[in-house]
Amino acid sequence: MDAKKFENIVNDLSDLKKYESLYHFAKNEEPLPSIENLTTIVEDIKKVLFPGFFGQSELKEETINYYIGTKLDVINRSLAEQIRRGFCFSCNKSDLNCIDCEKRSKEISDQFISNIPKIKSLLATDVIAAFNGDPAAKNYGETIFCYPSIVAITYYRIAHELLELGVELIPRIISEMSHSKTGIDIHPGATIGEYFFIDHGTGVVIGETTIIGKNVRIYQGVTLGAKSFPLDENGKPIKGIARHPIIEDEVTIYSNATILGRITIGEGATIGGNQWVTEAVVAKTKVN
Amino acid sequence: MDAKKFENIVNDLSDLKKYESLYHFAKNEEPLPSIENLTTIVEDIKKVLFPGFFGQSELKEETINYYIGTKLDVINRSLAEQIRRGFCFSCNKSDLNCIDCEKRSKEISDQFISNIPKIKSLLATDVIAAFNGDPAAKNYGETIFCYPSIVAITYYRIAHELLELGVELIPRIISEMSHSKTGIDIHPGATIGEYFFIDHGTGVVIGETTIIGKNVRIYQGVTLGAKSFPLDENGKPIKGIARHPIIEDEVTIYSNATILGRITIGEGATIGGNQWVTEAVVAKTKVN
Amino acid sequence: MDAKKFENIVNDLSDLKKYESLYHFAKNEEPLPSIENLTTIVEDIKKVLFPGFFGQSELKEETINYYIGTKLDVINRSLAEQIRRGFCFSCNKSDLNCIDCEKRSKEISDQFISNIPKIKSLLATDVIAAFNGDPAAKNYGETIFCYPSIVAITYYRIAHELLELGVELIPRIISEMSHSKTGIDIHPGATIGEYFFIDHGTGVVIGETTIIGKNVRIYQGVTLGAKSFPLDENGKPIKGIARHPIIEDEVTIYSNATILGRITIGEGATIGGNQWVTEAVVAKTKVN
Amino acid sequence: MDAKKFENIVNDLSDLKKYESLYHFAKNEEPLPSIENLTTIVEDIKKVLFPGFFGQSELKEETINYYIGTKLDVINRSLAEQIRRGFCFSCNKSDLNCIDCEKRSKEISDQFISNIPKIKSLLATDVIAAFNGDPAAKNYGETIFCYPSIVAITYYRIAHELLELGVELIPRIISEMSHSKTGIDIHPGATIGEYFFIDHGTGVVIGETTIIGKNVRIYQGVTLGAKSFPLDENGKPIKGIARHPIIEDEVTIYSNATILGRITIGEGATIGGNQWVTEAVVAKTKVN
Amino acid sequence: MDAKKFENIVNDLSDLKKYESLYHFAKNEEPLPSIENLTTIVEDIKKVLFPGFFGQSELKEETINYYIGTKLDVINRSLAEQIRRGFCFSCNKSDLNCIDCEKRSKEISDQFISNIPKIKSLLATDVIAAFNGDPAAKNYGETIFCYPSIVAITYYRIAHELLELGVELIPRIISEMSHSKTGIDIHPGATIGEYFFIDHGTGVVIGETTIIGKNVRIYQGVTLGAKSFPLDENGKPIKGIARHPIIEDEVTIYSNATILGRITIGEGATIGGNQWVTEAVVAKTKVN
Amino acid sequence: MDAKKFENIVNDLSDLKKYESLYHFAKNEEPLPSIENLTTIVEDIKKVLFPGFFGQSELKEETINYYIGTKLDVINRSLAEQIRRGFCFSCNKSDLNCIDCEKRSKEISDQFISNIPKIKSLLATDVIAAFNGDPAAKNYGETIFCYPSIVAITYYRIAHELLELGVELIPRIISEMSHSKTGIDIHPGATIGEYFFIDHGTGVVIGETTIIGKNVRIYQGVTLGAKSFPLDENGKPIKGIARHPIIEDEVTIYSNATILGRITIGEGATIGGNQWVTEAVVAKTKVN
Repeated sequence: MDAKKFENIVNDLSDLKKYESLYHFAKNEEPLPSIENLTTIVEDIKKVLFPGFFGQSELKEETINYYIGTKLDVINRSLAEQIRRGFCFSCNKSDLNCIDCEKRSKEISDQFISNIPKIKSLLATDVIAAFNGDPAAKNYGETIFCYPSIVAITYYRIAHELLELGVELIPRIISEMSHSKTGIDIHPGATIGEYFFIDHGTGVVIGETTIIGKNVRIYQGVTLGAKSFPLDENGKPIKGIARHPIIEDEVTIYSNATILGRITIGEGATIGGNQWVTEAVVAKTKVN
Repeated sequence: MDAKKFENIVNDLSDLKKYESLYHFAKNEEPLPSIENLTTIVEDIKKVLFPGFFGQSELKEETINYYIGTKLDVINRSLAEQIRRGFCFSCNKSDLNCIDCEKRSKEISDQFISNIPKIKSLLATDVIAAFNGDPAAKNYGETIFCYPSIVAITYYRIAHELLELGVELIPRIISEMSHSKTGIDIHPGATIGEYFFIDHGTGVVIGETTIIGKNVRIYQGVTLGAKSFPLDENGKPIKGIARHPIIEDEVTIYSNATILGRITIGEGATIGGNQWVTEAVVAKTKVN
Repeated sequence: MDAKKFENIVNDLSDLKKYESLYHFAKNEEPLPSIENLTTIVEDIKKVLFPGFFGQSELKEETINYYIGTKLDVINRSLAEQIRRGFCFSCNKSDLNCIDCEKRSKEISDQFISNIPKIKSLLATDVIAAFNGDPAAKNYGETIFCYPSIVAITYYRIAHELLELGVELIPRIISEMSHSKTGIDIHPGATIGEYFFIDHGTGVVIGETTIIGKNVRIYQGVTLGAKSFPLDENGKPIKGIARHPIIEDEVTIYSNATILGRITIGEGATIGGNQWVTEAVVAKTKVN
Repeated sequence: MDAKKFENIVNDLSDLKKYESLYHFAKNEEPLPSIENLTTIVEDIKKVLFPGFFGQSELKEETINYYIGTKLDVINRSLAEQIRRGFCFSCNKSDLNCIDCEKRSKEISDQFISNIPKIKSLLATDVIAAFNGDPAAKNYGETIFCYPSIVAITYYRIAHELLELGVELIPRIISEMSHSKTGIDIHPGATIGEYFFIDHGTGVVIGETTIIGKNVRIYQGVTLGAKSFPLDENGKPIKGIARHPIIEDEVTIYSNATILGRITIGEGATIGGNQWVTEAVVAKTKVN
Repeated sequence: MDAKKFENIVNDLSDLKKYESLYHFAKNEEPLPSIENLTTIVEDIKKVLFPGFFGQSELKEETINYYIGTKLDVINRSLAEQIRRGFCFSCNKSDLNCIDCEKRSKEISDQFISNIPKIKSLLATDVIAAFNGDPAAKNYGETIFCYPSIVAITYYRIAHELLELGVELIPRIISEMSHSKTGIDIHPGATIGEYFFIDHGTGVVIGETTIIGKNVRIYQGVTLGAKSFPLDENGKPIKGIARHPIIEDEVTIYSNATILGRITIGEGATIGGNQWVTEAVVAKTKVN
Repeated sequence: MDAKKFENIVNDLSDLKKYESLYHFAKNEEPLPSIENLTTIVEDIKKVLFPGFFGQSELKEETINYYIGTKLDVINRSLAEQIRRGFCFSCNKSDLNCIDCEKRSKEISDQFISNIPKIKSLLATDVIAAFNGDPAAKNYGETIFCYPSIVAITYYRIAHELLELGVELIPRIISEMSHSKTGIDIHPGATIGEYFFIDHGTGVVIGETTIIGKNVRIYQGVTLGAKSFPLDENGKPIKGIARHPIIEDEVTIYSNATILGRITIGEGATIGGNQWVTEAVVAKTKVN
């Protein structure tokens, strides 16, 4: 290519004003969260949650605590760093106080570490739900080792915990990792109770303000979405309004059903496959 | 974090009794099947099935047999090792006889190698089906090189063969690899005839006991599922019952159709998009 | 395994005549396009399109042009090589003129580089559409960094540009990379206007001859497909006929709707979730 | 190349009888020790010996024990495996008892782990010797981090310990790793006391039966070699005879000096640069 | 191994007081300089010094400046980070001021970048010297591409420049990288003029306070060392005293010669192989 | 750094005229030989020369020919490519005929493949020499697996063969790889007979025109060099003159001996350690 023409293209593409929304300039020289590092962090958390299944597979009772301790310390450090980068990404203040931000990142990471046992307890129920929910499952271990449901719920429970602790950006990155792997799209803002199982899973969408109780089972292609969302005076969507369904305990939702809006599906109800539901469903009823 | 608090978290997470179902302790010091090694094995099998497309792309007629021979020997050795690990994973006997198990693993791997030509013959028909089934396809090579249908069927035919030979766990791992890549979820237990084509494919689910004839074509979002599954006296699903459809030869099933239960879709029938089918369909009819 | 038996299997699998359609012999000793190299090329193009988000995250205004210039030069060289391999793959002429082919590959790559600013301008509108279309989005950067919609549209716009320039095979490879990551299957032949947004996205299919206007928004599971396709005298599909919908400006299509055939969805129309549409829709109407 | 000619070359090179001494056939299907794994093992041992210098550089007092415990357990397991392979390499018995061999390998590895504190104590003296011996050294840490002397002695002390425990082949592999890195060739059979320092080091040779006392300092190019070695009735060298020098405490040997044969260099002696010494040297004298 | 015994070993090896000199605790949470990163930095500097030889080998005149600019910016940033770590490593002050230290690191890195053209000019003379000094050399490019002399001098000139700018630890790390690759040990403190050539090189030692003029040529095994070094009242060597030779312009020193002490080898002198020189040599004389 | 200043440094370093000898511009767009690829080629040749020792360590008699055939084909192809690059590097003709050059490269590579059995036969003698020459050697396998002598001779025999076949640049690259690993510097132009052994080896130099007979054994630090080399009318060394020693059969040369000039060391002679020899030595005599 002609050298001058090449230079013009370079200059066009380097023109910060022309494509303003497409550039990210590091604030305070802080890079973006690293997708590669976050991938490692999530994989390390999985090693702590399901010892013997991922990574170090020759676990022994006598030495397991050394492995757990090392992994937790590594996770704690890396996560604090990524949390800080997430804050930097979203930071708009000209008077930002980076030292406080670093301290807060470490505190959040410490708090996350403290909450891993809670996540582990929840996942123990999800593993049982997967085994019980699928006649093809041979044992608990098989569901941990290769079920997309367990992948999706593990990522969700981690991302949700981080969101609850006030972490920016990272929960969404983690949920999209899981979405890409499994085809299951669970927004980290959703609330999901224990013993949750998704069979097959591809195409499942669970929106930001969804609330799901205990012992809920859903199948591939199920949408728990918003019916519509109100716009502000500029025609932009108003952020953060509760707009997704409430699914009570013991509900089953079969494949490709769509449930839209802030409606309640009552305890023990069953929603048939392909159903389109935009109004509340009474407890223990079936929608076919 | 406070050192004592950290130690408490470590101890909690190292407590084998507390989260019993979430740990895997290697039996007989044998690690779990390696997802990384299985990935390599499947990629190597693909190099043997479709020479020149994957890996070594500068194939020559004079030397092809050296490459095929080397790959087969490598596959045979690695696969025997993984098969053995799969048996260890599922092994419950206290009186397990590891030497017999190792011998059996090698025999199964040998048998699998012997069956690769059969798999190759079947895939040759699937490639033709993909080319004929998609007006956008330019040539056979394009379908081999980048169609998710060919990815999914290749993984399925490998996994199914291993399952037929009595291999534990690994068939499911391979089918989930394919599911993650393509959004197509074919249980390795399903039986699928020659000339099979899935267009687009995301969201397709083909259940464990499904039987599919020859020349069948399906589209994205199709479910061949179970209508319900009987529970045992403890409320647990009974494993292994035939509960998915029988699809006879020459059937076409359009996008997002759902076919549930042990019903037969007769030869040459056509199921329209979005249809919900729970009863048998007579041969050569159309369901719209 | 018995050495003789092993040799027989090797010979069977090396038999070029037996499985003719499954082999690729390099023409003119030219290997196939490399999926690994194409992955790097697309990642490099993303670094140029969204500076600071991917790869080099500590961008400074003073040095950005060096990075852009280097990346463009690397892309230009690698892409020309891959384009040439794509031509070789499809090449059938016995009298092929490789020197002209190499020259043409470089010219196409040069032309692609010249068109990157156009692609960048279009993507700037897609980023705004994603932010405005999702109440859960916090800022433009978040959509660039982790929305599958932006992944899918970026890959599509690159693949479409290459297809327009006459590149063989590679556009389809790039679209399948995106399909695998996101579950969104956009054929590079489709035409898509500015401000395009796909929410969640898993299961979306946009066929080869689809035409989409400006400000169109679609949701997960939407199919813009062919109703049927005519066969030639040999019963093979006739390639290249316009057979997918035309979606005019300002249209919204909700989740899992299916629109089939060369029909027009008029400007500003709304298609409800789960709808099955095979006839034209008048502008500004709603289909529920 | 002509296919037949190529086949002939392949057959010649595959002819086991023709080049018998150049083939290694795994005994009992056991591969050779892995240089890659041994490299990792030695690097891991260095992380335990010099915490904070190699690998995990952000050490904290509260968590150091988790890291040490994990590394030791990993080393123990990998080393046992490599020790076993070393025995297999040297194994000539037709009636070999592999189970005993595996057990012995684990016991040796356990014993090595138990002796790491002893190695660490010795190396602590070598670090002080390096700092005191080189006016250019700034602090202890610098010698640990980048002095070839410390590299060579660390590898030596590990290899020597393994040799003492009866390990086959591996000590020599480790000593050649060090030789390649530093140009210092210390046979693992040599005996070397505390506070040992080699300045610059390239070209140093310390033979198999050398005995070195405490506080010895040597410079580049020094040879502690054999003067000659007796042959057996077949004209082959008799293995294992004491044939290298004894260097007593507090000796200094300057650059390129050569000391040959089973002679004693008495306590506190100094050997000048380039000296050729083949007879015993009295304590506290200087050879110039 | 017995769990309690294992724990005791872990505790022994984690005992900070017991092996005090062998631990490195990060000051201010700052890790040690990374040998891996420094390796990359030096390789990148080589790409800037010898464009087209290392890394990007398809250089074009029209785009070279983009590559140089990008590499320099990458080097500048990475180097500043490593310089800072080097300061942290050596930092003893309890009242350390990290912000000033970071600023100083950046200034030094900027200064180093400014001095690269000077280094490049010197190396251009060394390349000519290598070509003229070795009858076996075919062209300049061959010496750049594979002569250990050019490797050693390049590393030395980089390390020396960094030492001159006050950088801690890193110059020694770089010189030991070169020592390990080439067997040539040049202390970064030495001063070496233009047109310097070392033939073969293994075993060469050039001490910290050596001064070498222009057009000097030396061969393998040459030592430019200290004769002795004075000890302080504690018997420790006094650091930093001029104790190595001064080699004036046009001197040639043949293989394995040893020159010790702060003596001057006069302009144009020749030192024969294996010579042992501890007294000044008059200009234009030969020592045989 | 100030942006303008930075730009000036970039421009200076991009100034092709200023540092002319330091740039390599690819001729005919052909990159330099790749050190990475050559490393792989040499490692692959070692796998063919010493089956079971390097790489595939679980060799079986039944399948060895597939591995040898595949490796040879891979080597042949990669080597032809590197040979061509070597010619491009040295190519000065403006009317270069690249098609002939490519053809010649392939022919040379074919010829090299044909000569591998000859190299293998020679190395079989070197392995025996190493075992017989070192009382510390336990078996043939140990010398193959970890003796620097075998590394150096293997690289030398490969490089020498390539040089004999007229390959440019690559023989020197290979010999420097070996020099860096072992400290043994053998010019590929030297001629070395069978049963050659170098003990320890660091610092050995064997010059370009050296001729070595059969059953020769040398020790560390031995130089077989040029005494001086004649200059042409411009004061540049005349290339290619025979200037290194001839060492006849059965000669032993002990450590650090130096033999300079085109002199003959007669059959069966012994040269003592540290000797400086510049005149011919009569057969069967000892120089001490």
